[in-house]
Amino acid sequence: MNNFTYCNPTKLVFGRGVENEIGGHLARLPEAPKKVLIVYGGGSAVKSGVLDRVSASCLEAGIEYVVKGGVQPNPTIEFVRECIDTARAEAIEAVVAVGGGSVIDTAKTVAVGFAYEGDPWDFFTGAAAIESALPVATVLTIPAAGSEQSIRAVITNGDVKTGIGNDFVRPRVSCVNPELFFTLPQKQVSAGVIDMMSHIMERYFTNTSAVDYTSAQAEAALRVIMENGLKLLENHQDYDAWCQVGLAGSFAHNGYFGMGHQEDWACHAIEHALSGWRTDIIHGEGLAVVTPAWMRYVWSSNPERFVRFAKNVFDVPDQENDEATINLMIAKFSLFLQRMLLPTRLSELTNVEVPIDEVAALATARGPVGNLRKLSTEAVRSILTSAL
Amino acid sequence: MNNFTYCNPTKLVFGRGVENEIGGHLARLPEAPKKVLIVYGGGSAVKSGVLDRVSASCLEAGIEYVVKGGVQPNPTIEFVRECIDTARAEAIEAVVAVGGGSVIDTAKTVAVGFAYEGDPWDFFTGAAAIESALPVATVLTIPAAGSEQSIRAVITNGDVKTGIGNDFVRPRVSCVNPELFFTLPQKQVSAGVIDMMSHIMERYFTNTSAVDYTSAQAEAALRVIMENGLKLLENHQDYDAWCQVGLAGSFAHNGYFGMGHQEDWACHAIEHALSGWRTDIIHGEGLAVVTPAWMRYVWSSNPERFVRFAKNVFDVPDQENDEATINLMIAKFSLFLQRMLLPTRLSELTNVEVPIDEVAALATARGPVGNLRKLSTEAVRSILTSAL
Repeated sequence: MNNFTYCNPTKLVFGRGVENEIGGHLARLPEAPKKVLIVYGGGSAVKSGVLDRVSASCLEAGIEYVVKGGVQPNPTIEFVRECIDTARAEAIEAVVAVGGGSVIDTAKTVAVGFAYEGDPWDFFTGAAAIESALPVATVLTIPAAGSEQSIRAVITNGDVKTGIGNDFVRPRVSCVNPELFFTLPQKQVSAGVIDMMSHIMERYFTNTSAVDYTSAQAEAALRVIMENGLKLLENHQDYDAWCQVGLAGSFAHNGYFGMGHQEDWACHAIEHALSGWRTDIIHGEGLAVVTPAWMRYVWSSNPERFVRFAKNVFDVPDQENDEATINLMIAKFSLFLQRMLLPTRLSELTNVEVPIDEVAALATARGPVGNLRKLSTEAVRSILTSAL
Repeated sequence: MNNFTYCNPTKLVFGRGVENEIGGHLARLPEAPKKVLIVYGGGSAVKSGVLDRVSASCLEAGIEYVVKGGVQPNPTIEFVRECIDTARAEAIEAVVAVGGGSVIDTAKTVAVGFAYEGDPWDFFTGAAAIESALPVATVLTIPAAGSEQSIRAVITNGDVKTGIGNDFVRPRVSCVNPELFFTLPQKQVSAGVIDMMSHIMERYFTNTSAVDYTSAQAEAALRVIMENGLKLLENHQDYDAWCQVGLAGSFAHNGYFGMGHQEDWACHAIEHALSGWRTDIIHGEGLAVVTPAWMRYVWSSNPERFVRFAKNVFDVPDQENDEATINLMIAKFSLFLQRMLLPTRLSELTNVEVPIDEVAALATARGPVGNLRKLSTEAVRSILTSAL
């Protein structure tokens, strides 16, 4: 196990109706904001009434608010700039995200950009360091990105989709009411399930040894997500199943499952290049295509790790050799993805021909990706080609 | 699943040599303490050099310190009072515990008592509410109590052993270096293992349904603790095994494994009465005696939960009926405790005859204990009698 530091101060408020408590939690923050910017995406937050409940809760706690809707999937830096203009004009003191990862990541970037004189994209290029942020709070409406407890925000600028990671942007309080997930379309349910699984797997697949505690926690979480993900396929209003998926997704990306590990993150890097190339690609669907192809390409770098995964997550009995065991695992994993109605080939992901060279170059623009095996542009090309 | 709030802001600094970083972490606290009280237990903290390393780290960070040694197992309110006198005389601004649960709980109580005019025992009787505390930091030398990430402190006053639980006393930063555990005697290793297991089991055994995520996390953690606990029996210097046990123990009591549950806590209540009656009883050893007896008494209140536990933690195959499955689990659990050289009968725990009526009355002095089944004085008497 590697030395590590883990700190997850987000207050998670979980259960039925908790969005009605957001105002009180905001008022009790040390900064006690008097006016907040509420950021959201499309009309569903309005239609479902959650936006009204959140703003009513703020008023009740003596907090004024300004709303700003219109965050798109694969959220853009242009929209962040717009929000910052509003935030400054209104002199807000905290940002409240009502939505999924795209909305939360927008809110986080607004929070760091608010007090910075330059352009917020500077934080993503490394041209500026994050030194402060407004407090961020969230009311989650799509369990997937884990942004409600994470230090990360991913934003798109042209064909570049990249992230920041900083303790300043970690939400102070996140309200997760699984009832709010009942009306999600199956596409988003499934994309969310593979996204949270990927957050755990990116940490699980490591060459670091002696990480049994975190490995066993990760395996248990993955099994629970798959079991309950399949239940949701049958019934989107299964509150109990949503509780498990929502809770797992919320911890998947806060660092818990990576304690003491060198982490990987190749699949996310490759997928970000894909959905950077075409912003209509859903992140989770991209991951469903990339991950099995990545496994086939890299397993031989650490067969022991993949065999353990095969046994403990997919109940694969020992085959004649490691390769056969791992291949059976990948087949079972792909089958699960298909049962969840997710694409597993590039051709199912988009009906536009994927410019593999371009995407591979984009994925590796800052150098090789991944740690279990370091992947060059050529290696990413091979992985994408195998997923055609 | 019940609605819940979970917040665990303790910064966990984990790995080889991390006690040397404590000064820097203290200096970066918002309060930036200039002078700290370092509390410790016996000579081992001196002999091992850890006390010197902690104080050197403070000096290096520009922090003065005063040391106060002499915390005993089942720490007393008298010693807390002594420490508060020192803390006030020296005008310290934070408390650093170098030790295990007894030292940390003493430090926490000093931290809340420091600014309170009355007697610190008032917090334990409910006569006073906790409204502030000095920052607490810890360098863990005994993995067991989980106090390094918890909101709890347990203190003994005469024959009363009881606790407080408050966010103010949760350590801000805890340094856990598994190398510091190498020299622990087997008695403490084993008592620590069952103590952390108990913190997880007290949360696991619940009548709350639809808690699969936390249940699976708990089962995985318990298996890892047992597997690595047995490795330590062979070799106290197995760093890798200590990493798993140390990490599990540190999360066992911070609330993670109880998210969404009604928790139980009968075993702890009964054990606290035992070690309140005779302070030479080691808390973990008391738990090893009480827990199997408690299981035999209460399983029929929720056979489904105990059968799940039997299968997922002890690999017990289905028997002819639930009772047989659960009895086999209790037998395997008791065997594990015996392999860890722990007592499983009251007669092995102490060579003084246990005044069962008195202990049962003490355990239930504030009313029935436990939630899976509410236990009256008479029920606790039956449990203790069955453990004779």
